Amino acid sequence: MIIVLKPNITQEQVEHIMDKMDKLGLKPWLSEGVERSIIGVIGEEDMLRALPLEGFPGVEQVLAILKPYKLASLEYKKKPSHIDMGGGVKIGGKHISIMAGPCAVENRDMIIDIAQIVKDAGAVCLRGGAFKPRTSPYSFQGLGEEGLKYMAEAREKTGLLVVTELMDIRNIAMFEKYVDVIQIGARNMSNFNLLKEVGKTTKPVLLKRGIANTLEEFLMSAEYVLAGGNPNVILCERGIRTFETFTRNTLDLNAVPALKSLSHLPVVVDPSHGTGRWGMVEAMSMAAIAAGCDGLMVEVHPNPEDAFSDGDQSLLPKKFEAMVTRCRKVAHAVGRDI
Amino acid sequence: MIIVLKPNITQEQVEHIMDKMDKLGLKPWLSEGVERSIIGVIGEEDMLRALPLEGFPGVEQVLAILKPYKLASLEYKKKPSHIDMGGGVKIGGKHISIMAGPCAVENRDMIIDIAQIVKDAGAVCLRGGAFKPRTSPYSFQGLGEEGLKYMAEAREKTGLLVVTELMDIRNIAMFEKYVDVIQIGARNMSNFNLLKEVGKTTKPVLLKRGIANTLEEFLMSAEYVLAGGNPNVILCERGIRTFETFTRNTLDLNAVPALKSLSHLPVVVDPSHGTGRWGMVEAMSMAAIAAGCDGLMVEVHPNPEDAFSDGDQSLLPKKFEAMVTRCRKVAHAVGRDI
Amino acid sequence: MIIVLKPNITQEQVEHIMDKMDKLGLKPWLSEGVERSIIGVIGEEDMLRALPLEGFPGVEQVLAILKPYKLASLEYKKKPSHIDMGGGVKIGGKHISIMAGPCAVENRDMIIDIAQIVKDAGAVCLRGGAFKPRTSPYSFQGLGEEGLKYMAEAREKTGLLVVTELMDIRNIAMFEKYVDVIQIGARNMSNFNLLKEVGKTTKPVLLKRGIANTLEEFLMSAEYVLAGGNPNVILCERGIRTFETFTRNTLDLNAVPALKSLSHLPVVVDPSHGTGRWGMVEAMSMAAIAAGCDGLMVEVHPNPEDAFSDGDQSLLPKKFEAMVTRCRKVAHAVGRDI
Amino acid sequence: MIIVLKPNITQEQVEHIMDKMDKLGLKPWLSEGVERSIIGVIGEEDMLRALPLEGFPGVEQVLAILKPYKLASLEYKKKPSHIDMGGGVKIGGKHISIMAGPCAVENRDMIIDIAQIVKDAGAVCLRGGAFKPRTSPYSFQGLGEEGLKYMAEAREKTGLLVVTELMDIRNIAMFEKYVDVIQIGARNMSNFNLLKEVGKTTKPVLLKRGIANTLEEFLMSAEYVLAGGNPNVILCERGIRTFETFTRNTLDLNAVPALKSLSHLPVVVDPSHGTGRWGMVEAMSMAAIAAGCDGLMVEVHPNPEDAFSDGDQSLLPKKFEAMVTRCRKVAHAVGRDI
Repeated sequence: MIIVLKPNITQEQVEHIMDKMDKLGLKPWLSEGVERSIIGVIGEEDMLRALPLEGFPGVEQVLAILKPYKLASLEYKKKPSHIDMGGGVKIGGKHISIMAGPCAVENRDMIIDIAQIVKDAGAVCLRGGAFKPRTSPYSFQGLGEEGLKYMAEAREKTGLLVVTELMDIRNIAMFEKYVDVIQIGARNMSNFNLLKEVGKTTKPVLLKRGIANTLEEFLMSAEYVLAGGNPNVILCERGIRTFETFTRNTLDLNAVPALKSLSHLPVVVDPSHGTGRWGMVEAMSMAAIAAGCDGLMVEVHPNPEDAFSDGDQSLLPKKFEAMVTRCRKVAHAVGRDI
Repeated sequence: MIIVLKPNITQEQVEHIMDKMDKLGLKPWLSEGVERSIIGVIGEEDMLRALPLEGFPGVEQVLAILKPYKLASLEYKKKPSHIDMGGGVKIGGKHISIMAGPCAVENRDMIIDIAQIVKDAGAVCLRGGAFKPRTSPYSFQGLGEEGLKYMAEAREKTGLLVVTELMDIRNIAMFEKYVDVIQIGARNMSNFNLLKEVGKTTKPVLLKRGIANTLEEFLMSAEYVLAGGNPNVILCERGIRTFETFTRNTLDLNAVPALKSLSHLPVVVDPSHGTGRWGMVEAMSMAAIAAGCDGLMVEVHPNPEDAFSDGDQSLLPKKFEAMVTRCRKVAHAVGRDI
Repeated sequence: MIIVLKPNITQEQVEHIMDKMDKLGLKPWLSEGVERSIIGVIGEEDMLRALPLEGFPGVEQVLAILKPYKLASLEYKKKPSHIDMGGGVKIGGKHISIMAGPCAVENRDMIIDIAQIVKDAGAVCLRGGAFKPRTSPYSFQGLGEEGLKYMAEAREKTGLLVVTELMDIRNIAMFEKYVDVIQIGARNMSNFNLLKEVGKTTKPVLLKRGIANTLEEFLMSAEYVLAGGNPNVILCERGIRTFETFTRNTLDLNAVPALKSLSHLPVVVDPSHGTGRWGMVEAMSMAAIAAGCDGLMVEVHPNPEDAFSDGDQSLLPKKFEAMVTRCRKVAHAVGRDI
Repeated sequence: MIIVLKPNITQEQVEHIMDKMDKLGLKPWLSEGVERSIIGVIGEEDMLRALPLEGFPGVEQVLAILKPYKLASLEYKKKPSHIDMGGGVKIGGKHISIMAGPCAVENRDMIIDIAQIVKDAGAVCLRGGAFKPRTSPYSFQGLGEEGLKYMAEAREKTGLLVVTELMDIRNIAMFEKYVDVIQIGARNMSNFNLLKEVGKTTKPVLLKRGIANTLEEFLMSAEYVLAGGNPNVILCERGIRTFETFTRNTLDLNAVPALKSLSHLPVVVDPSHGTGRWGMVEAMSMAAIAAGCDGLMVEVHPNPEDAFSDGDQSLLPKKFEAMVTRCRKVAHAVGRDI
């Protein structure tokens, strides 16, 4: 922690800050410069972070030096994590995992049909929402537990793993029963109580980045799960909110190499929510792979026109198959496979 | 709903869309123009909103006409709502309500002391967090139920109402016992399950705007509470996230006249979180009043240097008193009082 | 400048950095900590800023300590600047200056009529565009020099000062002939060549903040003009670009107290462009005054329905008069006058 | 253009709007709905755009239907433009063009050395700034005409084309003499007078997207050049400004497929400015190619530690060579070459 002092700070104010540090058992040092003086304190940054140092008289600004996350950092664990999503299907290595399926589980037959389709095209996980976070209280909110059952049935029939979104702490036991990978949606990335609870399970957690959250905040949310005792966190970039309105969100592919340079956790990209336009999903999927992602999460629907939600961004099965074929070529070009 | 068609749409595709509308019992009409044709459908927009019309072949874009919220709108209820926060203390009328207190309840004595201080200065509500949403799992997370008890005790002693943040669905009964106004924090503005639950209580709900949420989304979250049966929603602007880093957030005072033009719900402004700098709180409080807000939520701490959280943005009691005095003058200038 | 080193930096890399500093005649010091070491260099930050220190091997991040602007800072000039806009009409003191007029000068009669109207209502400056920056090459681009002549004529008749936007370096002599205050629009805030040229004139410069520029960048653009030798810079907040679409821009009133805490330059607020909605102009004008601004720039048009541009955000003369009356009350409440 | 009317609009107000349209020679039609009525006007949208329709009494909102740009649109020219950058070197076809070089031309020898290096690695254009837009008036501003001469000399020696930034209208003749492709920087994307002037030249224009400009605005700036008579516009995505601070900007690769779906103009990506971190340049370059770009603009410097500017984001020659090799593999995977 570096405390930059105002040019007109008094000797008394300087001593006040130094005393405060001493009382906390820290070892500050003062460096006097021509235009500004600074006080440096190295180590135990957590304790300092809690202090409102910028409110102290004579302080101009406070600069953090250490990263606030530990377990999620590449310094803590120097090799990429390979996470077993279930049945030995791992993410984080050479193989790029495709997660695909409809936005929402609409009925039993559709989810089983789609499961077979995406399985045949190369997916390893079936995605689909049983509980849907909808902006409007009047929109379809999902089939609930019934939807989870249908997904579990699709798993039986196809061997795909099941990933779906948990919105409510009270449903964790239900999810542990039916689901392989628990998804935490973008809207709940900072729902810390929910993060604490999934930190207590042993299920892998696919954590989506909030639409207005920095990469550091994203890793801090991962840290909540890791600190709870669950080491199986998969990060998912799904678009951030910017001024641009042509796309639903701005898929931030910079997050892929950036997260890889900061953390050992696998990174998945969701180009369907990230762009909101099915016509852009293939291009952005290929780009995500070239950027170094470990997996893709893609919306596929046999009949987008009749989808209960997000039909605008869903691929038809044939387009999805073609996309996987093209993505595989890019994967090979960067030394990966699908 | 206006469906703008691509210039090269085929007759067949047009008919396909018209048929779809007909089957849904809607009455579409086609207007053919020189450069573009459009299909208009008026009424029953909710049903249309669910349709992925932009995914239909030949469709260029779809423009919504109706606002997606109803109960929150000024059209639904043409006069401003006066909400009883408890004991006959109302918000939404001529009187501007001051809510003040520390970021977090740190111990019994401090919250009781501050309560008396802010009461004397003109506040009607005591704010203070017992459950704290913290970015880091390693930061102080609040005193929990103990904190609520201390706040309730402060109410007994001072007559102030108590407003504090609810983060966990499982704690609603506890909040109903101790609290007058339930606060939903910015991070939970889109935690729809939590909104549904507070929609079932009769307690007033102070709903904070998410840092990256539009005013329309903000009103949709209010709609969740209203649709649940609880008419007592108070909106709170507390800063949005932009590219600017000088302030912690960008307090969006435009939200005040904008929300007043769209909704009947009272609007509170939180300049402490909105700016993150105590030196800006007074100026932005006065500005908020001049812009037409119904209340202020301000952080006050007797000793910000020792605050457990957010000390940088807390006012000393004397500064708070002076601020209320200056705010009162602005209130009088715009025909209100404090 | 603080250079934070990676935990795994080698002794050789540390020495390489220390050597580099020495060669530049700087005096670095090394502080070794438990988790990170840092190198501090105080003074001569300009020289360091040019160095790509983050590209040096073993460097994790570089933190600037000093503000990059000097002449614009409150440290350089500790009292607020009172700037003479012409004829002894000063801005930056107790009196709040109203600048008003149409978006564009449309013809001689209209600008003279409006001038009298805004003068009678309390304005000291006439605003109006003769050269218009338009997003579309097919839109009305302004009357050019003819427009400037009409404004100068309006000045003769009313005694108002004239402020209008300069877009093209080649027109500076023309502006010096007709205009009192040269406006640099938001789109040209980072047109550094234009800033250098107006730095050579003696005319006051009203510099608008770019829609995506931080306050620091804004002050750096002011620094360009000041460094050129022209001390008469007036800052103007006119809305930034965020994700919100209800308003045309997000008028950032935080900029008012923030700029006042950083700089001695006067601050004007433009609520017409800032909101893009005439219905919000009065509320945001009053808020701007309560926040501490030194002036307002407001669009007024006798017949907004026929305006050549920006009619949506223009006030009718009667609304403008009423607004000034209400603003005056707020000004008195904060110890200012209009 | 669709004019959505307020529910409480009067018959008189409706007629007033219809009359206005009639007087302009337009043919409006009224559609009355249950909750809202609308007035539609198809064709001649340019004329309507100038009207402040949202300011008319009884109007709730106005929705544009047509795109405001024409010459830049894919509807106007249905096949991708192949632009000759000079000497028959075309961009916009199967071949991906690499433009590389230092941020700034620092001296004769360095630019000639780098030219040979990037040529050998596969580049077709030499980039380098002779006139530099710098945030600080105290930073190195470029060598000016001398820098252009050195670049021209490098062209003689290597056969590379020269692309460099024009900031000042007064320098156009100088650029026409020395330069192959005129670059308009992000800060000048909305400097419409500069766009008009380069619209009069015959040199290809590489137009960079402003950091806070939508794709529509970007294409409107291209339209300024095209409307001036110069059909040779190359679009360049170079990062937008968001809340994220880890990267200097947020490189928006969504722009690549989006622009390709809207326009016939070639699209180049600049990952150096887009990320501000040399460690991310390779990954984002490969991603840009996979997303479908037509060219890359990359900063290369033989000794980034001594670079006059932007050393943090410059690649060493060896890293650049390796990057081109890896990019070529991705290019082949998507049916392109380098």
